[in-house]
Amino acid sequence: MLGLGLIGGSLLRAARAAGREVFGYNRSVEAVRAARAEGFDATDNLDEALRRAAAADALVVLAVPVPALPILLAHIRDTAPGCPLTDVTSVKGRVLEEVRAVGLLDRFVGGHPMAGTAESGWAAGDAGLFTGAPWVVAVDDHVDPHIWAQVMALALDCGSFVVPARSDEHDAAAATISHLPHLLAEALAVTAGDVPLAFALAAGSFRDGTRVAATAPDLVRAMCEANAEQLVPVLDRALDLLHHARAELVDGRPITDLVEAGHAARTRYESFPRPDIVTVVIGEERWREELAAQGRAGGVIRSALPVRDSRR
Amino acid sequence: MLGLGLIGGSLLRAARAAGREVFGYNRSVEAVRAARAEGFDATDNLDEALRRAAAADALVVLAVPVPALPILLAHIRDTAPGCPLTDVTSVKGRVLEEVRAVGLLDRFVGGHPMAGTAESGWAAGDAGLFTGAPWVVAVDDHVDPHIWAQVMALALDCGSFVVPARSDEHDAAAATISHLPHLLAEALAVTAGDVPLAFALAAGSFRDGTRVAATAPDLVRAMCEANAEQLVPVLDRALDLLHHARAELVDGRPITDLVEAGHAARTRYESFPRPDIVTVVIGEERWREELAAQGRAGGVIRSALPVRDSRR
Repeated sequence: MLGLGLIGGSLLRAARAAGREVFGYNRSVEAVRAARAEGFDATDNLDEALRRAAAADALVVLAVPVPALPILLAHIRDTAPGCPLTDVTSVKGRVLEEVRAVGLLDRFVGGHPMAGTAESGWAAGDAGLFTGAPWVVAVDDHVDPHIWAQVMALALDCGSFVVPARSDEHDAAAATISHLPHLLAEALAVTAGDVPLAFALAAGSFRDGTRVAATAPDLVRAMCEANAEQLVPVLDRALDLLHHARAELVDGRPITDLVEAGHAARTRYESFPRPDIVTVVIGEERWREELAAQGRAGGVIRSALPVRDSRR
Repeated sequence: MLGLGLIGGSLLRAARAAGREVFGYNRSVEAVRAARAEGFDATDNLDEALRRAAAADALVVLAVPVPALPILLAHIRDTAPGCPLTDVTSVKGRVLEEVRAVGLLDRFVGGHPMAGTAESGWAAGDAGLFTGAPWVVAVDDHVDPHIWAQVMALALDCGSFVVPARSDEHDAAAATISHLPHLLAEALAVTAGDVPLAFALAAGSFRDGTRVAATAPDLVRAMCEANAEQLVPVLDRALDLLHHARAELVDGRPITDLVEAGHAARTRYESFPRPDIVTVVIGEERWREELAAQGRAGGVIRSALPVRDSRR
């Protein structure tokens, strides 16, 4: 486990609780001391951790912020280039680029456990953080079936269910269901802040619509800016819809298009199915395309899929 | 009580529970029968109800949808033009126009109890609906202090606290904290509906941001379209903020302006004060301006203010 913050620290705890042998690295010695005090095997010596990972052929988990990736990946390339590699970062395309740049793509399967709290750091970690949460495991064209199965098993061991998805589709979806809502909430809060009486009358619609504007600005900026390429097109789509409704309001025409489509979409979301994926064998022909298609349709993996017993 | 739907029916119950003498009119006989079965004094004969109101100098409450107002107001002008008059409609400027058009402005003080449920009709009514809810009472330039005091007393008797506000400021605030959030929620839901994988990954930010898109389309259209004049400028403000952030994302610049302002506004909202208004005497010089100013600053009336003992 490279990085023992909220996610890495929670994952170290969850994986150990599942009976796995785990060891961790963290740059700051405070988190290492705290982890050791709780009986975990942890070090602030990166090369020592990576040599040990290489010797054990351990699954290496990147659990550091995106800006820390290049240096960390260079060390992995030098010391543990053969280890299977995954990550737990919320933006997948950017991580894929960094991994490709350092030449480790064939050992890498991206991941995104969709769990978190407003806290950060080792002390905020919790072995139960991933229980019942979706954990996206990337089915990009390059992924190796055996490494994919290892990442799937880690997610399942931690109590998550697995959503198979391509990295680019993950990022477009995250832009839509997480980053765009943040922008809309910020804009709503600012607009209301300038209208006399708005806060005095604000109730449920406003509270719901601005809840995520309470998120720390640095976090909001980091996620939106890192995913700008995917965020701009979905923001444009929302802006188009709003401009269309604006024109109707100005002309005294009904805003039926937006309101009925919005209600229909929200209704579809409420009844969105979550079927179990059970028929796919990892490594069989077109397994990646099949998993991506089933994930797109709401399918999730709740118990380990079989792996075809052969090299690709 | 003219209209015995959710709001009118709840108000009839709440006012009787407060010890007031109440009687109601409803166009459809079903609601009248249901109200009578629960021991209420109700009729489907409008002129009978209005003659009785005129004889008793009763406070007449308009509790019908906006499209029903012109006909109802014409009857009131003919049969009970001297009665004090209020309403419980969510858009205040439009009602003010209708009342002015029929020549009853000097007897009218607008009101908006900010309470409701997803239900409608007499059967959905509840004597406790207004308990603890804000009830806007309009302090427009024309309002008579004695009628204003009667509407205030009704709201307080029903367990609400009173927010004094001008009708135009009420409508601008409602556009911002209710109608704009509906438009943003609809746009977010539609946008996500078109992105593969979005529903599969949707979590808290999306659920909060689209919750009000589950509202019946007709209700959303009715409130937004009736308040278009106030809604368009606040929608434009939100669109400006979003276009500004979009340009920054495209250029790879930080979206600090929007995110920090949004966070600051949401933080201000969370600590918005709700001081009691206690120093104003209704009917004294500039009492309307003073109440509007205190309402704008978050002030609320929790127990009846005194009325200056003189004619204006």
